[in-house]
Amino acid sequence: MMAPRSISIFGATGSVGSSTLDLIRREPGAYQVLALTGGSDVAKLAAAAIEHRARRAVIADETRYADLKQALAGTDIEVAAGEQALIDVAEMGADWTMASIVGCAGLAPTLAAIAQGRTVALANKEALVSAGEVMMAAVARSGATLLPVDSEHNAIFQCLASGHISEVRKITLTASGGPFRTATREEMHQVTPAQAVKHPNWSMGRKISVDSATMMNKGLEFIEAFHLFPVGLDRLSILVHPQSVVHSMVEFRDRSTIAQLGSPDMRIPIASSLAWPARMETPCEPLDLGRIGRLDFEAPDEERFPALRLAREAIEAGGGYPAALNAANEVAVAAFLDGRAGFLDISVIVEDVLARCGAGAIDTIEDVQAIDRSARAMAQQLTAELIN
Amino acid sequence: MMAPRSISIFGATGSVGSSTLDLIRREPGAYQVLALTGGSDVAKLAAAAIEHRARRAVIADETRYADLKQALAGTDIEVAAGEQALIDVAEMGADWTMASIVGCAGLAPTLAAIAQGRTVALANKEALVSAGEVMMAAVARSGATLLPVDSEHNAIFQCLASGHISEVRKITLTASGGPFRTATREEMHQVTPAQAVKHPNWSMGRKISVDSATMMNKGLEFIEAFHLFPVGLDRLSILVHPQSVVHSMVEFRDRSTIAQLGSPDMRIPIASSLAWPARMETPCEPLDLGRIGRLDFEAPDEERFPALRLAREAIEAGGGYPAALNAANEVAVAAFLDGRAGFLDISVIVEDVLARCGAGAIDTIEDVQAIDRSARAMAQQLTAELIN
Repeated sequence: MMAPRSISIFGATGSVGSSTLDLIRREPGAYQVLALTGGSDVAKLAAAAIEHRARRAVIADETRYADLKQALAGTDIEVAAGEQALIDVAEMGADWTMASIVGCAGLAPTLAAIAQGRTVALANKEALVSAGEVMMAAVARSGATLLPVDSEHNAIFQCLASGHISEVRKITLTASGGPFRTATREEMHQVTPAQAVKHPNWSMGRKISVDSATMMNKGLEFIEAFHLFPVGLDRLSILVHPQSVVHSMVEFRDRSTIAQLGSPDMRIPIASSLAWPARMETPCEPLDLGRIGRLDFEAPDEERFPALRLAREAIEAGGGYPAALNAANEVAVAAFLDGRAGFLDISVIVEDVLARCGAGAIDTIEDVQAIDRSARAMAQQLTAELIN
Repeated sequence: MMAPRSISIFGATGSVGSSTLDLIRREPGAYQVLALTGGSDVAKLAAAAIEHRARRAVIADETRYADLKQALAGTDIEVAAGEQALIDVAEMGADWTMASIVGCAGLAPTLAAIAQGRTVALANKEALVSAGEVMMAAVARSGATLLPVDSEHNAIFQCLASGHISEVRKITLTASGGPFRTATREEMHQVTPAQAVKHPNWSMGRKISVDSATMMNKGLEFIEAFHLFPVGLDRLSILVHPQSVVHSMVEFRDRSTIAQLGSPDMRIPIASSLAWPARMETPCEPLDLGRIGRLDFEAPDEERFPALRLAREAIEAGGGYPAALNAANEVAVAAFLDGRAGFLDISVIVEDVLARCGAGAIDTIEDVQAIDRSARAMAQQLTAELIN
């Protein structure tokens, strides 16, 4: 038997973290858990730390330190809390780290893990959307292996095993098209939050469901792909594929296209990252194309879904623009969900922020955070003006 | 610049051979042609040998030796003819050999090339269908790298780059379903040769078009896949996919499926074999799924297409049964094309031959050839009885 692989999970109490632990549970002895971190869910974090015999448990919310200490009393699990404690986890030197803290809070711990030069599975969108240049420069410096966990990027990563990135002619991200794929702009004007959060294929949170409805989610993934797979903007494309069975595709220079397909279960890309470069058994539903019967594809419509154009423009502008796009979008989506903005206002707000923010170069996470704050403030003000 | 790769092409005047030369022509200096062989087309062989500055040209038909000698007079290209001359080509020790002689005549030269322990691109179906065990034993002995050229098997080979064969859960060969995909048995009863040779997606010869119509072509490919990819019969499956865009798929144990897609152009799998493990530029049409719009999939129907069942039964029986199946099918298809048998008689004849032939073990090409002869004789007799 091989020596167990040491792993840490940033964001162990979230959906990706829980799925990772589910897969680890199925291969007893294969993994040694160093650290698990959570945001504020002490009970879940403590239970996971005990079950997986973690060496350390870290809660981001410092006010929950005492609760966690108490929940782990009588165990030999180290307890820590707060931002610096998250960063310190990286120095435990796990062979493999899952970076799945949601939002900007995940940037610093992810960067710390990358700096160790080992393998980092990346499920934090902001890391690449807002801080792509900073992240990829850190990867280049440390020599870390970055494994994308998002189903589309994981698909592309898998397809790239069939050739070299210099031989890629086109990378195609597939998009479900969301619940309003066939809707007119007039119909979208009337959309309510309840309608927008009904995603046809994946079960997801409210914010990301709205991003799927506006297709901003695909725009953000386009930006991620730009950083992860340096083939150049003109070799990246998006294709609408309502069934979400083909997760993405890579066409090589010989015109051979390799695609990755699967059931809509996040444990498949997580397992791919966890076992990489090998493959592990999973309990996921096998793909049955004979039963599915039909796969459809259509070009995306940037007129009806301006988010796609905005994301492309943000990455073309470079520097802090993608961070501003992401921040403005978060504020606008929250306003839509609260009834303070219409569905079509989301992209209007984002476009206005991009036009006004004048985002410069970014070299550090602090630069990203500054742009994030100013774009949010600008978006809040634009939202307030909508009501008046 | 890298030293040119030395190559030989068995069957240089056929469709696959010509396409290989077309690709070589596009990369001047990358390849050094050792030998080109042809069946009987002296003019085409001589022209190719001159253009590609081959060291040797070999014509299989010994009666054409003088013609070839004359056509190459004044060049320093060596000229040879006959069966042994084909086999001698292998000893020139090409780095890469294309084995694309059609039919049983290709067995001995292919085996000779494999014995050299270099890289052999295999486009001769009979090599694996009739002599799979002999071929694969020779590959194991010599350590040769076998690259399948058939679009389905080449697709599987490409997909396997994303994992290890021990991690494969299922290999799925796609099948167009042929021109009678939706026909009833009653409708098939009436089918004429002219109807049967109209293939919906690929432009092919008459015999292989009929094989596509009966789906025996997919049965033969199933047998090839069994030998090429030793995952076991229960992990091999066939899926009908009328558009022939997805050429085949591999599902790994984590339930991740990798598929290879492309336009129906044989130069894509040939280029994949020629440049392997790299990728070369080709002039082929890129895949435009947005324009194609829709891909369909359905389970195959062994009731209407008994050839699929017969192929599976032949490989289950092992030994000489696949060779008998292939030989009987060739005779039955010829009889159908000549008007001496009905469309549905083809599988009846094949099934009768399999039931009666008592094919034993095969250890050598001579064993294969003996079974081939006796199955043909039996099929001829059964065909004659049909008329009476």
